[in-house]
Amino acid sequence: MTSQTVDAFHRGRFHLVQPADRGHRAGLDAMLLAAAVPDGFAGRVADLGAGAGAAGLAVLARCPDAKALLVEREPSMAGFARATLELAENSALAGRADVLEADVTLRGKARIAAGLSDNCCDFAIMNPPYNDAADRASPDALRKAAHVMTDGLFEEWVRTAAAIVRPRGGLAIIARPASLGAMLAAIEGRFGSAELMAIHPRPGKAAIRIVLRARRGQRGALAILPALTLHGATGNGFSAEADAAINGERALFA
Amino acid sequence: MTSQTVDAFHRGRFHLVQPADRGHRAGLDAMLLAAAVPDGFAGRVADLGAGAGAAGLAVLARCPDAKALLVEREPSMAGFARATLELAENSALAGRADVLEADVTLRGKARIAAGLSDNCCDFAIMNPPYNDAADRASPDALRKAAHVMTDGLFEEWVRTAAAIVRPRGGLAIIARPASLGAMLAAIEGRFGSAELMAIHPRPGKAAIRIVLRARRGQRGALAILPALTLHGATGNGFSAEADAAINGERALFA
Repeated sequence: MTSQTVDAFHRGRFHLVQPADRGHRAGLDAMLLAAAVPDGFAGRVADLGAGAGAAGLAVLARCPDAKALLVEREPSMAGFARATLELAENSALAGRADVLEADVTLRGKARIAAGLSDNCCDFAIMNPPYNDAADRASPDALRKAAHVMTDGLFEEWVRTAAAIVRPRGGLAIIARPASLGAMLAAIEGRFGSAELMAIHPRPGKAAIRIVLRARRGQRGALAILPALTLHGATGNGFSAEADAAINGERALFA
Repeated sequence: MTSQTVDAFHRGRFHLVQPADRGHRAGLDAMLLAAAVPDGFAGRVADLGAGAGAAGLAVLARCPDAKALLVEREPSMAGFARATLELAENSALAGRADVLEADVTLRGKARIAAGLSDNCCDFAIMNPPYNDAADRASPDALRKAAHVMTDGLFEEWVRTAAAIVRPRGGLAIIARPASLGAMLAAIEGRFGSAELMAIHPRPGKAAIRIVLRARRGQRGALAILPALTLHGATGNGFSAEADAAINGERALFA
């Protein structure tokens, strides 16, 4: 029996059941990723590599007409996602979410057989696993699985997103700046009219994350939006715009 | 005889002889590009596609120990670069600059025979020609030649930069955000430890240019620096940091 926590997000509008000390615990990245889905979104969003379901539920909490497909390969994390949906605190959202235990990197018939059918969704959001020196050193296998970046990972994940998202549907990715080249290469020919937003921790500091949004089959050029800065020059509080995005009050992108 | 203008840059510290109404007239882009060369730079900078020499001379005006190689394919524009160096107003800088009439896209022996020898420079700066809908419609052939983007242009220009810049030397490119993917693909395996800066016209507006700087043969991950915003929310004046960079008072990058 893994010890678990129940954590509140969006000022208590939804909760997440997560492993207390193992696996990839959701937080800021998942909330920023969810904020890339526009206000008023009314379709089905696939949360690829959903973990306990943080990003997908954050979309549901902000967009009352949205549905979510939480796709997670790790059986234990998919179990946390199911436990999340069974929480009484999430009863208003749970009916709009499904958990699918499947590997995002499956291709063709194997992908479809696993439940990821062509054009099944209107939007895909992803926070692909990445390799971080600190995490690499961790002996924790679950944590490792969530953070090991393999060559071609963006290619594999975006290929699946392009298959399951309907034409003109959306894609949003949150990643480290180091992955920007791989992300742009992966969307090439699949998703266009991309918009990039850098996430800086404080004024004058280099970005710690990037959020890329694009539309399937669109051909517009990449736009670089004004950056988001999480904090002021000092202190731990969030900037007004970061606070609103993280807490589901409004989308980061129009 | 082409009519020409003599325009002051860096608050009058150097001047440029330019065609009055033909060709690619230098301005903000060249000044921002030059500002990507660090303060105190003391080597030889190659200005690839130099036009009348704006970016290269801007480096010389700010960095007293720098030398510049102004590389321009168009004979008429190379003529303007030579006229620029002959101006009395530029006599303090002209001895540190050479004009080379050569095509940046030449390869191997042809490139070397044209005067672009391996490891001949410490830094390369470039503002590659781009295709703009408004310019495409222009009947002006010179202007067209400076603005027509061809497939693989970044690949060709960065390939030459990687040949002529010594190991650990620098590269800086200014381009439109739409070219970011092509730029990152072109530097892959050649230049690393890249730093990206978005140039926004005003707060809250999408970027109009990007400046990318990288080091030959370095392997560090891409960093996204704080953006530069040219103007305030209203008015035509430049922000303090933009004004300093455009007028050669300090580099944009450390």
